[in-house]
Amino acid sequence: MRVTLFGGPGDVALGERPDPAVQEPTDAVVRVVLSCVCGSDLWYYRGESPHALGPIGHELIGVVDAVGSYVHNVRTGDLVVAPFTFCDGTCASCLAGWPSNCLNGGSFGNHGVDGGQGEAVRVPFADATLVRVPGCGYSPETLASLLALSDVMCTGYHAAVSAGVRPGDTVAVVGDGAVGLCAVIAAKRLAAGRIISLSRNPARQALAREFGATDVLAERGQEATARILELTRGVGVDAALECVGTGQSMATAFSIARVGSVVGAIGAPHDVVVPIDTVIFRNIGLRGGVSPVRRYIPELLPDVLNGTINPGRVFDYTTDLDGVVNAYDAMNERRAIKSLLRIGTTP
Amino acid sequence: MRVTLFGGPGDVALGERPDPAVQEPTDAVVRVVLSCVCGSDLWYYRGESPHALGPIGHELIGVVDAVGSYVHNVRTGDLVVAPFTFCDGTCASCLAGWPSNCLNGGSFGNHGVDGGQGEAVRVPFADATLVRVPGCGYSPETLASLLALSDVMCTGYHAAVSAGVRPGDTVAVVGDGAVGLCAVIAAKRLAAGRIISLSRNPARQALAREFGATDVLAERGQEATARILELTRGVGVDAALECVGTGQSMATAFSIARVGSVVGAIGAPHDVVVPIDTVIFRNIGLRGGVSPVRRYIPELLPDVLNGTINPGRVFDYTTDLDGVVNAYDAMNERRAIKSLLRIGTTP
Repeated sequence: MRVTLFGGPGDVALGERPDPAVQEPTDAVVRVVLSCVCGSDLWYYRGESPHALGPIGHELIGVVDAVGSYVHNVRTGDLVVAPFTFCDGTCASCLAGWPSNCLNGGSFGNHGVDGGQGEAVRVPFADATLVRVPGCGYSPETLASLLALSDVMCTGYHAAVSAGVRPGDTVAVVGDGAVGLCAVIAAKRLAAGRIISLSRNPARQALAREFGATDVLAERGQEATARILELTRGVGVDAALECVGTGQSMATAFSIARVGSVVGAIGAPHDVVVPIDTVIFRNIGLRGGVSPVRRYIPELLPDVLNGTINPGRVFDYTTDLDGVVNAYDAMNERRAIKSLLRIGTTP
Repeated sequence: MRVTLFGGPGDVALGERPDPAVQEPTDAVVRVVLSCVCGSDLWYYRGESPHALGPIGHELIGVVDAVGSYVHNVRTGDLVVAPFTFCDGTCASCLAGWPSNCLNGGSFGNHGVDGGQGEAVRVPFADATLVRVPGCGYSPETLASLLALSDVMCTGYHAAVSAGVRPGDTVAVVGDGAVGLCAVIAAKRLAAGRIISLSRNPARQALAREFGATDVLAERGQEATARILELTRGVGVDAALECVGTGQSMATAFSIARVGSVVGAIGAPHDVVVPIDTVIFRNIGLRGGVSPVRRYIPELLPDVLNGTINPGRVFDYTTDLDGVVNAYDAMNERRAIKSLLRIGTTP
């Protein structure tokens, strides 16, 4: 089969790998329909984080092609969403609701596990990992939104859930990448009263507004802090969602959070210092992390299927496997918010 | 009146100040019955933190001696507990449940505000600040436990509440000072199933067990981590309570916390680095801070009055104002867990 392979910083290329097959009775093989490039893929593409060489891509929806003898939640021909990590569903972490921290799990497209940016993947623990999508004949838009459930939508949602967003809250989203934009959707879904998006890119500003942002601010750093404190009468926001992962974005999130609130953070951290004096002396908490996507997909799936949320709108560049290098470059050069890869067909 | 004055590192002495009087119609004057020395007093006593010169001591219970014309929740002769901070009860922070972050509040015994380690204090915003204790004729033991509500008991409780301790949880308390010991009481009150106290001091170990600790470990640092992971089958504890405020204690708390849990931290931070990679990649949150004592006192007061909890047991050195220097030295030299000052009499 054809797959995308990582050969080192700046080196992403199409290559060949043997077709995956069921190896364990709990496995499934999924033929990939849609995949995409993640902001976190850019970290290793740019050489800023380490990553195993080999197949890459951790976001996918697809069609079940084969199942092992123990698999009974999905069957051949089912349309499925795969969370970006697989999980056994039975370990202490999974039972506590943290499938992305599964003690026996792992990530698609890393350490030699099949990647989503290819024609097919072997899915370990298929019953616990995959979520079946009922029905068929979905539009390209709905399929794109289903794909967003494999990572970015559920990651943005984790930021909002971690921060404890409640009805009527004033929420600020730091970061206008695909996850930050999905965090706007999440805040709206949790009935926030006011949603402030920090963005200076016109296309992203427009999407933030479409997703529910009531205020879009182009300021950054201390100017953003001053503006938000002004908007909130000096009190700060009820929930600050940190969707970048840099030192500046974390500092901004803590500087605008009101006393007693929680910063919801999901950015992979790069040179982040948590301001412990702010934590302690202003009672501002910090929660978040790698999203327990498998827990959130069943909760968000109905909203996607009935069109209440449309996270697939974050994909503004579409190509196929042959164009995968362009898909990376479009995001790396910030010409695209998020690049979609059309790989296979739905039943 | 006679008060304890801070003259600089190592310099605590008895001195004289004018008797306090009602200055604002919302003030009360409280004659101090009991006060004590706090672990946080030792930071400036040792020269490790700055502190304004002048009257000190932020923990007190006392008897109302005079009230301003707007005060109607307490009256002359009432026995009252004062939280260690005063608060107006009407600002955004107070209304959100964070009275210790009151926008118009402050701390007793700092910046020239009367201190608890003296014969009397002027209490701003008396209606919002003071909690009246019903009844009279309480034993010295009960009075000591009431005093503990002004800070340490409610601070230990804040660690447990911040960490989200639930019935049946396995909880670890890092720190065997008065607050750490009160955190053991708090964990038990919240129905923790197993409470692991880290202590190597025999007197504190005994008190931890009396308060509800099921396991007491003398190990520290990596050895403590290894032992707790062994006790929890490698999973970690459901709630780690950080009750010290040093880099090592925070590192230990994060190293023993299970995936998806929250570290409840109340130690005033000194050289603390939050392990952000652990936060993000293990979904371990951080909450806590300066305890909203005024919110907790009404919740814990009945438990003290009916003897369900006895946080006053942390006082193992008793003296009076004349012995205040000894009270500091006993704690500074770790001869005492916490020093009680008997200053006035109850009605």
